Amino acid sequence: ETIHSTAQQFGAHGVWGDDPTETGVCRLALTDLDKKIKDWFITETKSLGCTIKVDNVGNIFATFPGKHNDHLATGIGSHLDTQPTGGRYDGIYGVLSGLQVLRTLKSNNYVPNFPITLVNWCNEEGARFPMSMMASSVWAGLTKKEAVYKLQDVFDSRITVKDELKRIGYLGEIECSHNSNPLKCHFEIHIEQGPILEALNKTIGVVTGAQAFSWIEVTFEGTAQHTGTTPLEYRQDSLLAASQVIWKLNEMAKSHGGLATVGKISVEPDVVNVIPEKVSFVIDFRHCEDSVHKAMELEVFDIIEQASKNTAGNGAPLKYSTNLLIHSPASHFDTKMLGIIKDSASSIVGENSTHNIVSGAGHDSCNTNQVIPTAMIFVPSKNGISHNPREYTKPEEIFLGFKVLLESVLRYDAD
Amino acid sequence: ETIHSTAQQFGAHGVWGDDPTETGVCRLALTDLDKKIKDWFITETKSLGCTIKVDNVGNIFATFPGKHNDHLATGIGSHLDTQPTGGRYDGIYGVLSGLQVLRTLKSNNYVPNFPITLVNWCNEEGARFPMSMMASSVWAGLTKKEAVYKLQDVFDSRITVKDELKRIGYLGEIECSHNSNPLKCHFEIHIEQGPILEALNKTIGVVTGAQAFSWIEVTFEGTAQHTGTTPLEYRQDSLLAASQVIWKLNEMAKSHGGLATVGKISVEPDVVNVIPEKVSFVIDFRHCEDSVHKAMELEVFDIIEQASKNTAGNGAPLKYSTNLLIHSPASHFDTKMLGIIKDSASSIVGENSTHNIVSGAGHDSCNTNQVIPTAMIFVPSKNGISHNPREYTKPEEIFLGFKVLLESVLRYDAD
Ligand SMILES: NC(=O)NCCC(=O)O
Ligand SMILES: NC(=O)NCCC(=O)O
Repeated sequence: ETIHSTAQQFGAHGVWGDDPTETGVCRLALTDLDKKIKDWFITETKSLGCTIKVDNVGNIFATFPGKHNDHLATGIGSHLDTQPTGGRYDGIYGVLSGLQVLRTLKSNNYVPNFPITLVNWCNEEGARFPMSMMASSVWAGLTKKEAVYKLQDVFDSRITVKDELKRIGYLGEIECSHNSNPLKCHFEIHIEQGPILEALNKTIGVVTGAQAFSWIEVTFEGTAQHTGTTPLEYRQDSLLAASQVIWKLNEMAKSHGGLATVGKISVEPDVVNVIPEKVSFVIDFRHCEDSVHKAMELEVFDIIEQASKNTAGNGAPLKYSTNLLIHSPASHFDTKMLGIIKDSASSIVGENSTHNIVSGAGHDSCNTNQVIPTAMIFVPSKNGISHNPREYTKPEEIFLGFKVLLESVLRYDAD
Repeated sequence: ETIHSTAQQFGAHGVWGDDPTETGVCRLALTDLDKKIKDWFITETKSLGCTIKVDNVGNIFATFPGKHNDHLATGIGSHLDTQPTGGRYDGIYGVLSGLQVLRTLKSNNYVPNFPITLVNWCNEEGARFPMSMMASSVWAGLTKKEAVYKLQDVFDSRITVKDELKRIGYLGEIECSHNSNPLKCHFEIHIEQGPILEALNKTIGVVTGAQAFSWIEVTFEGTAQHTGTTPLEYRQDSLLAASQVIWKLNEMAKSHGGLATVGKISVEPDVVNVIPEKVSFVIDFRHCEDSVHKAMELEVFDIIEQASKNTAGNGAPLKYSTNLLIHSPASHFDTKMLGIIKDSASSIVGENSTHNIVSGAGHDSCNTNQVIPTAMIFVPSKNGISHNPREYTKPEEIFLGFKVLLESVLRYDAD
C-alpha cells in the first residue's frame, strides 16, 4: 500500500530539475547543478535518519540504520550526473529507486537487520571530465585519486576535478576506498539503455555481467595542403585516414559480434579547401568476452596502422599516436545476488517476464564487482534509446523495477 | 638595373606583418589586419601617382596613368587576404608583384600607352566569410552583392560581410561591376600551390585555365544512442555514413582523374560514448573538364544517397540534406594573352623552363575570365605546399615571376 502511494511521488523525482516531462537532463559532473542535486540528496536521506559520509573523490554514502549497525552495510548505488544530451533515467533512476527503498522502510517503520547504504557515485558519465565510472574506480582501488584529480574539463582545460570538488564543497574528509569505507555488497538498478528487453517483451533484466570496453584516442598527423592543387598521390590526408578507420572498425566489430564506434572527432584546420592536417578521435569498442575484446584490440591497432599507410601519398605513412583512455574488463556478477534478484523478480512479474542479460554499458557496479559481491537489475528502455533526451521508460516499468530492488534488498538483508 | 635594386625591397614586402620570415600569415578578410593592409596598399599606390577607387564590395582599384587615359586600363590583380593557416605568398605575391610593376615604371619614368589598374580583390579565400573569390564574382556579375552582404562570419554568425565592410571603412561608393567600372583585361601572377612545376623543374607556368570546382555541404541526421548498448543493426550512425562518403569520394575522384576532399567536418553531440546524431561536412571536388566535373557531381550525390542507406540500421535510411555552396566552371584563358606570357617567359627564362599548366585552385581570374580577356602566370611552390605556413617560393623564382609579369604587361601595352 505504501509502495503504491509513493509511486507517483517517486515518478515525480524522475523529472528532477523542474523540466516538463518531455525534455532530457543535462547535469554534468561537478557543475553547480551537480552540487544542487548532491545537496538535495543529502537533505532527503538525512530526513530519513541516514548518516552521511562524503569521501575525497565526491562520492556520497547515506547509511540507513539497521538492527546490527556494527555489521557491514548492504549497498545500493548509481549516479546523478548525466551526459550533455542525457535523458531523465540513466543513473538517476538507480539512486532515486534506492532512495525510495529507504523511504518505504521508513514510512513502514521497518528496521532492516543490517544497515543499508545508498551511494551517489561521482562522475559516472565521464562526459565533462573524460573518465567514465570515475569515483567508483578510485573507491575500488582500480585508479589512484591523484590521477583523477588531474583530469581536465573537456570544455575548459584550465579546470580540474580537484578544483571543482573543492569549489562545490564535495572534496570530503574521508578516504575514497573500499578498505577504509567498505560495503558488504552493491545492488544497482538501471535502465537497459538498449533495445533488447523491449524487443523480447520482458519487464525485468537480471544483469549477469557487463561487456569489456576500451576507449582509445587516436591522432593522425598529415599535411595541410590545398585541396585544389594537390594531386591525390601527393596527399597526407588525416581525415581520409580517420574515415578509413571508422569504416573498418565497423566491419571488424561485425565480424566479432562486438561493437565499435567513433563518437568524438575533431579536425584541424577545419577549412573547406585545406586538406586536414590533424585529426583526433576516440574509438570505443566492446565485447562481452575479455578474450574476444583483446583480439579486437589487436585488430584496432592494425586498422590504424593500415590506414596510416593506405591513405598516404608518395611519401612516408601518416604519423599517428594512440592513447588508451579507459579499459574496463568484462564483469561477471555475484551468483548469490543474481539468484536473489531472479527470485524476487519472478515473484513480482513472473519468471516469464524476466530475462538474463549482459550490460552493454559500463556501470559503477563493474568497479564495485572487482572488490565486493555485486549485481544489477535492468528495466526496458523505449526504442533502446539512451544518452539522448528521448530516453524513456514507462512509469509501470519504473515502478516494477523499484519493487524488484526493494524485494531483493530485503531478501538479502534477511538471508 | 632598377629591377634588381628593388628585388630585395620587394621580397621584404612578402614578409608584410612584421613576422620573421619563417612563419605564415593569418589575415582573414575584413578583419582589422585586412583593413591595415588595405590602407597600406592605398598609401603605397597613391605615392606612385595612382588614383584610387573602392567599390561597394571592398575591392580596391589603383590606376597608374598612361598616355591615353580615356582608354580602358590593363588590369593586374590578386588578393591580400589569407587562410587562417595561410602562407606568405598565396595572393599576396600577385598584388605585390603588380605593385612592383608600377614601382618599376615609376622609378624609370616609364609612361605606358594605356593606364594600368592594380586590383586588390576582397575576400578571395572565403575562409572567414564562406565564399571564395567573393568580390571578383560580384564584379563579374556572377553573384549579387546583396547575397554576399548577408554572408556570416564562420566564427561568429552575428557578423556579416556588410557589417564588416562598414566597420573597417571599405564599403566604397562606386558600384562593384565590370560594366560601370571596367578593365580591358586581367593579368594575375600566383604561386602554383601544387607540386607540378617543382617536380618538372620548370620556372614559369603559363596557366591555360583552371579546374571546375564545387563545394557541397552535406548533413546526415542519425540518432544519438549509447555506444555500448545499441547493437550495430539498430544504429543510425551519422559519422559512419560520413566516413563512407569520404572514403568513396576519394575512390570516385581517382577513377575520374579528378580531386575530391573533405576538409571541414563537425559532429554532434561529439561525446565518446554517444553515437553521432548529426554530422555536417563540406565536399570539395574538381576536374579540369566541365563534362567530367558534371559526371562527378552525379556520383557525389549517389555516394551520399548510398551511404545514407548502407549505414542505416533496421529502420529507415539516415536523413540527409545537401547545399551547393559554390560552383566555379572550368576556365579557359585568353589565347592572345597566353601567347604574350609564353613569349615573355621564353625571353626571360628560356622556353624550356616554361610549362603550360592548368590551375588546380580557383582564382579571381576565373571570375574576370567570364567577362574580360584574362590569363595567369604561376611560379613553383616548394613541396607543393600551400594554405599552410610552410608555403614557400624561392626569392629567385619570385623575382623571375615578377619579371615575366612586367614583360607581359609591357608587351600587352605596346600591342
Ligand atoms: N551507463 C553508462 O552510460 N556508463 C558510461 C560508461 C559506458 O560508456 O559504458
Ligand atoms: N587560390 C585559392 O586558394 N583559391 C581559393 C578557391 C579554391 O579553393 O580554389
